[in-house]
Amino acid sequence: MAHINEEFLKLQKNYLFADIAKKVNAYKTAHPDKKVISLGIGDVTQPLAPAVIEAMHKAVDDMATKEHFHGYGPEQGYLWLREAIVKNDYEARGISLDPCEVFVNDGAKSDTGNIGDLLSQDNTMAVTDPIYPVYIDSNVMGGRAGVFENGRWSNVTYMSCGEENKFVPQIPDHRVDMVYLCYPNNPTGMVITKEELKKWVDYALAHNAIIFYDAAYEAYIQDSDIPHSIYEIPNAKKVAIEFHSYSKTAGFTGIRCGYTIIPKELTATTKDGKCIEVAQLWDRRQCTKFNGTSYISQRAAEAIYSPEGKKQIKQTIDYYMENARIIRESLTELGLTVYGGKNAPYLWVKTPADAPSWKFFENMLNGAQVVCTPGVGFGLAGEGFIRITSFGDRNDCIEAMARIKKWLKK
Amino acid sequence: MAHINEEFLKLQKNYLFADIAKKVNAYKTAHPDKKVISLGIGDVTQPLAPAVIEAMHKAVDDMATKEHFHGYGPEQGYLWLREAIVKNDYEARGISLDPCEVFVNDGAKSDTGNIGDLLSQDNTMAVTDPIYPVYIDSNVMGGRAGVFENGRWSNVTYMSCGEENKFVPQIPDHRVDMVYLCYPNNPTGMVITKEELKKWVDYALAHNAIIFYDAAYEAYIQDSDIPHSIYEIPNAKKVAIEFHSYSKTAGFTGIRCGYTIIPKELTATTKDGKCIEVAQLWDRRQCTKFNGTSYISQRAAEAIYSPEGKKQIKQTIDYYMENARIIRESLTELGLTVYGGKNAPYLWVKTPADAPSWKFFENMLNGAQVVCTPGVGFGLAGEGFIRITSFGDRNDCIEAMARIKKWLKK
Repeated sequence: MAHINEEFLKLQKNYLFADIAKKVNAYKTAHPDKKVISLGIGDVTQPLAPAVIEAMHKAVDDMATKEHFHGYGPEQGYLWLREAIVKNDYEARGISLDPCEVFVNDGAKSDTGNIGDLLSQDNTMAVTDPIYPVYIDSNVMGGRAGVFENGRWSNVTYMSCGEENKFVPQIPDHRVDMVYLCYPNNPTGMVITKEELKKWVDYALAHNAIIFYDAAYEAYIQDSDIPHSIYEIPNAKKVAIEFHSYSKTAGFTGIRCGYTIIPKELTATTKDGKCIEVAQLWDRRQCTKFNGTSYISQRAAEAIYSPEGKKQIKQTIDYYMENARIIRESLTELGLTVYGGKNAPYLWVKTPADAPSWKFFENMLNGAQVVCTPGVGFGLAGEGFIRITSFGDRNDCIEAMARIKKWLKK
Repeated sequence: MAHINEEFLKLQKNYLFADIAKKVNAYKTAHPDKKVISLGIGDVTQPLAPAVIEAMHKAVDDMATKEHFHGYGPEQGYLWLREAIVKNDYEARGISLDPCEVFVNDGAKSDTGNIGDLLSQDNTMAVTDPIYPVYIDSNVMGGRAGVFENGRWSNVTYMSCGEENKFVPQIPDHRVDMVYLCYPNNPTGMVITKEELKKWVDYALAHNAIIFYDAAYEAYIQDSDIPHSIYEIPNAKKVAIEFHSYSKTAGFTGIRCGYTIIPKELTATTKDGKCIEVAQLWDRRQCTKFNGTSYISQRAAEAIYSPEGKKQIKQTIDYYMENARIIRESLTELGLTVYGGKNAPYLWVKTPADAPSWKFFENMLNGAQVVCTPGVGFGLAGEGFIRITSFGDRNDCIEAMARIKKWLKK
């Protein structure tokens, strides 16, 4: 009698984006004449950079000849890509890394989800609230979350981020083993200063905790004093794993490539206190359960580090950030309180008159045919907020703002 | 103090192909003038089919325009690919499947490795010996293997496959919860008849066990009475998960695409005996820890089901199978005993005079500059055998055979 992993049964049934899709589809069916604009889901819409397209065509051609054919690549990614990552994303910021500390992947979701494989089931964890649901759900599957009661997991420390603390999570007053941080933040669009981030590194050093630092949106940072990498903080290599994705940096949501940094200095211990290099464990995990990401996607990633590639992906990011500016200014003008959207593609908007997130979502869908993401879907502390993304088309953004204006003025 | 998953420390240090690479590199460094031919590692060498190349160029072009751009795809794979799989790989063989039972992946290694996420740590398991190491190592990481003693894991039932039983694994005389079967087999190149496979399905039905059926090499089957899918056996949908990969079918080792079938009828139970649909758990797992495989790779996979695609991938398979014939006949002529290579790209060769696998490997490397894979690397029952693959270049195959002939005649 094969038994299932019963931790899966604890997972909460409803998935945020599936629920949204259901409601939006129901609306569309009932109102086939209305054009719905989505500022909800976090997927990009602009085509890939010409340098990336060119590199992929070339890579496809490689696969057509025996001389340039590429079969299995290294599970950790091709060295030419790992070197380009070190040079452009780290050395250019004064951070030294060995390419062996870079693990190319098929997107940050896989690695943030699978990293728990390496860690003991009884580690304790802390997350910000609101939060990207994968961090928690993957730990529920791994048996670390405890029991779900009143909207929260019993073994998880939640660090509320709201207006009362300017969205700066308070460091727990007790020891936790694993901390998930995402900056620029999904969903709030807020960033962390070096000073605040240093407090986390110090906390982790003091408690031998591991920080899982999701930097998927770092390419959107505009202010020069905001850290792009946690390794800008001294000694962070001893305590932090950093996740990067090209999904938002370069529109790779459909072609799947990113990378994870696990510094050699990062260790965790056995129950007996023996220090073990985490990178080594991850290397073994990947060699056993992963066969590398597509050669074509890796060539695509390499191309974004070329001079033309850099220029082109910046243009697309500027395009999205101009959307963010338009949304931020339009909603602010309408009297709404808007956070984020300055160094991140996400805007975190307080619902007027403290309306519950889902209520406001439905009202805006019905009243303006504009889709957002209810903030409470990211955690209890997200109640009373909605998330708006700037990944849409410019004209859709402008039209959505006009519609919201008309609707709110009614 | 973050603790590691100590199961990882139980993993045996040396990885077969890394060891081989080390020895081959040492030989090359010492003998820079000698050309070494590898018939060892299981990677393809021939370029992708023209229909696949064309489809990928088209898919790349899609990503260059806003109208045809593809962002996140469904985690389970695009419906057009899932439908093509059902139609061509199943309905054509009289097996009905719902596209919802098909999960597109980035290769069979990920799914055979990750499937254990769904299952309780205390399930018991059986594997053939020899075996593809991922099946065991992923279960070591998952805490299911027990203690490693005398070359075997204490909680694993090993079913020896050797000359004494014509490489047909004997069904355990006790209950196990999980059974790994791979046919056509890696490494032995042997196949299973419908009659033998039915015994396994009956066993699994009787014990509510799950069969993990790795069909990665099914495209190499030549004999019409050998099953391509375990679902050719009545009631197998109740007990079997089937893994497919385009890696060997169509040379996709570098572009990463395959699929896993989890029929809706397949259930496992909670400790209390409640039946749970496994496909549902896998769906949740994939939605949490995976973001789909590259759009370009999925379009590539779709192309192999076109009339031209089918013709072209058959040509490449015929090419490899002609290599297999040449190797089989050459080695047989030299008096060696050769198994496999008739319905599979692998040949399993008995070492002369019962030489240990690694000894023969080294002798052949030194004497003929030909690399094979020592059979013992796949398990104790592989001792005294080597694995030879037919994925090489025709001329290399022919030259390797000439060299082996010269060397053995010395």
